[in-house]
Amino acid sequence: MSGRELITLGTASQVPTRSRAHHATFLTLDGVGVLFDPGEGTQRQLTLAGIAVSRIHHVCITHAHGDHCLGLPGVLQRAALDEVSHPIAVHHPHAAAPTVERLRQASVYDDRADVRLHPMAAGDVVAGDHLTITTAALAHSIPAIGYRVATPDTWRLDPQEAEEQGVHGPDRARLLREGSIRIGERTVTVEQVASPQRGTVVAFVMDTGWCAGALELAAGADLLVVEATFLASEAALAAEVGHLTAGDAARLGQQAGARRVVLTHLSQRYPTIEGHLAEARAAAPDLDVHVARDLDRFEVPRPPVTPPGAPAAPR
Amino acid sequence: MSGRELITLGTASQVPTRSRAHHATFLTLDGVGVLFDPGEGTQRQLTLAGIAVSRIHHVCITHAHGDHCLGLPGVLQRAALDEVSHPIAVHHPHAAAPTVERLRQASVYDDRADVRLHPMAAGDVVAGDHLTITTAALAHSIPAIGYRVATPDTWRLDPQEAEEQGVHGPDRARLLREGSIRIGERTVTVEQVASPQRGTVVAFVMDTGWCAGALELAAGADLLVVEATFLASEAALAAEVGHLTAGDAARLGQQAGARRVVLTHLSQRYPTIEGHLAEARAAAPDLDVHVARDLDRFEVPRPPVTPPGAPAAPR
Repeated sequence: MSGRELITLGTASQVPTRSRAHHATFLTLDGVGVLFDPGEGTQRQLTLAGIAVSRIHHVCITHAHGDHCLGLPGVLQRAALDEVSHPIAVHHPHAAAPTVERLRQASVYDDRADVRLHPMAAGDVVAGDHLTITTAALAHSIPAIGYRVATPDTWRLDPQEAEEQGVHGPDRARLLREGSIRIGERTVTVEQVASPQRGTVVAFVMDTGWCAGALELAAGADLLVVEATFLASEAALAAEVGHLTAGDAARLGQQAGARRVVLTHLSQRYPTIEGHLAEARAAAPDLDVHVARDLDRFEVPRPPVTPPGAPAAPR
Repeated sequence: MSGRELITLGTASQVPTRSRAHHATFLTLDGVGVLFDPGEGTQRQLTLAGIAVSRIHHVCITHAHGDHCLGLPGVLQRAALDEVSHPIAVHHPHAAAPTVERLRQASVYDDRADVRLHPMAAGDVVAGDHLTITTAALAHSIPAIGYRVATPDTWRLDPQEAEEQGVHGPDRARLLREGSIRIGERTVTVEQVASPQRGTVVAFVMDTGWCAGALELAAGADLLVVEATFLASEAALAAEVGHLTAGDAARLGQQAGARRVVLTHLSQRYPTIEGHLAEARAAAPDLDVHVARDLDRFEVPRPPVTPPGAPAAPR
């Protein structure tokens, strides 16, 4: 698989169907793997997708309903069995801590994996070397948060400018790394020879009604994964129980300026994706919008090149 | 589906594979449904098999390893969602109680189902109107019990004998029900006009080395479901970790006098059932032996007719 890919392992809300497993989404960005909301059966879906549990570095759980977390025991127990050597961080809302702790020890096993639980509040940020994960509150029937995952900002060197400033060979990498460099009597700064390049941003917005947090997470994202449990015919029900319709989800992506949008987490009442696709396209005709089936794969778009002198896109 | 059927919902030990879900076996006998050892993904496998959770009356768990119980939350939460109105009894070894209690409340849901936990010791008997469930100790790395499920013994009326004794019409059913009846001045007993007919016996023997408990459970069973995790090439490993080979499982069935034997719970190292089938047939050439694939269905043989005057078969 590509180094920048999103795989919708399971796409069902609430209950699995013949064609859809419980929800689970796997993201890989430059070798770092993030598993979002693993519902029951995620271990099997990973196998069907050809993804070893050792490729997971982060698990992000939005809330404590079963279709978003009952697959956690299988994943953690498999990590122990496979002797995964790196830490696995499990991010979850504070309110879900009792659930996550039960799932961590759900059944008897030889618990050798290095699993680290990270209770998160809305607005919390976890900044790692490879990924920054931020959260925002969603609007559901129980406390829920969404996630925004970003790779680090980098610099894009302008070779001609570097040449003119007399920065050659290994000095170029050192300048990008250290921010400034002495060339004879002068100091050359990175801003003089390179333009800022924001990292890739992927947003994950699960069970929620329309809310500010969802918009905040999705703002300018290269890829937005968003629940679309219902169609317009169930709009009243969606509003009542804290869910989005396909049209809502597409409008959210468009309004937030997301560059690619994947709808998932479909109610069992829809046997195919056609209705979702039609309503999403009607709601946002110019949006690059998709409706996920199990085991679909989506390339994560590269962030656009920032024009020299322009401010970096919002993180 | 038939009223007397066993469905191997999932057939994998330890970890699921592309072709095998985690173990789960569903038995239906005269309208009573028993789910054995639901591993992760059982809810989905039930859907694929077309079995509503409302058809489950008993869940029997042999031990607290994940491949035998991680599907319990999905089943119980689905029973709540589907508003199953009858009680669901969950039988499990005493030692598995902490696990079962965690799984019962694994994640947040509206817990409306009437779920009744039944901790069992080896040798315990639960006698219900429709089924009697007995247990015996198995030999595994953690405490484990197997199950023996039997429908009630009945009587098979001999119409000619009834005629000769003057028992007619509705009196016949009353005699079978009450055991004796007055005909004029005489008392006619059920033994005079009917022969005892033992109920159907299904034995479920999971993770275990060869042991007396397994033989006891399987004795004279109409159908034996038995783990066959390994092949002879892994016999040393099987002995070390408390498992059976396909040959062991077939010999167990033959030695116990089981009438039909289904091998399941295969290690991921075997991509097909062919090796198991060959070793089982070689070990017990005259045995009616099968190796299960996911979603296979097996008719439960009817118990043989007891000859008049013969003692009932062992329960």
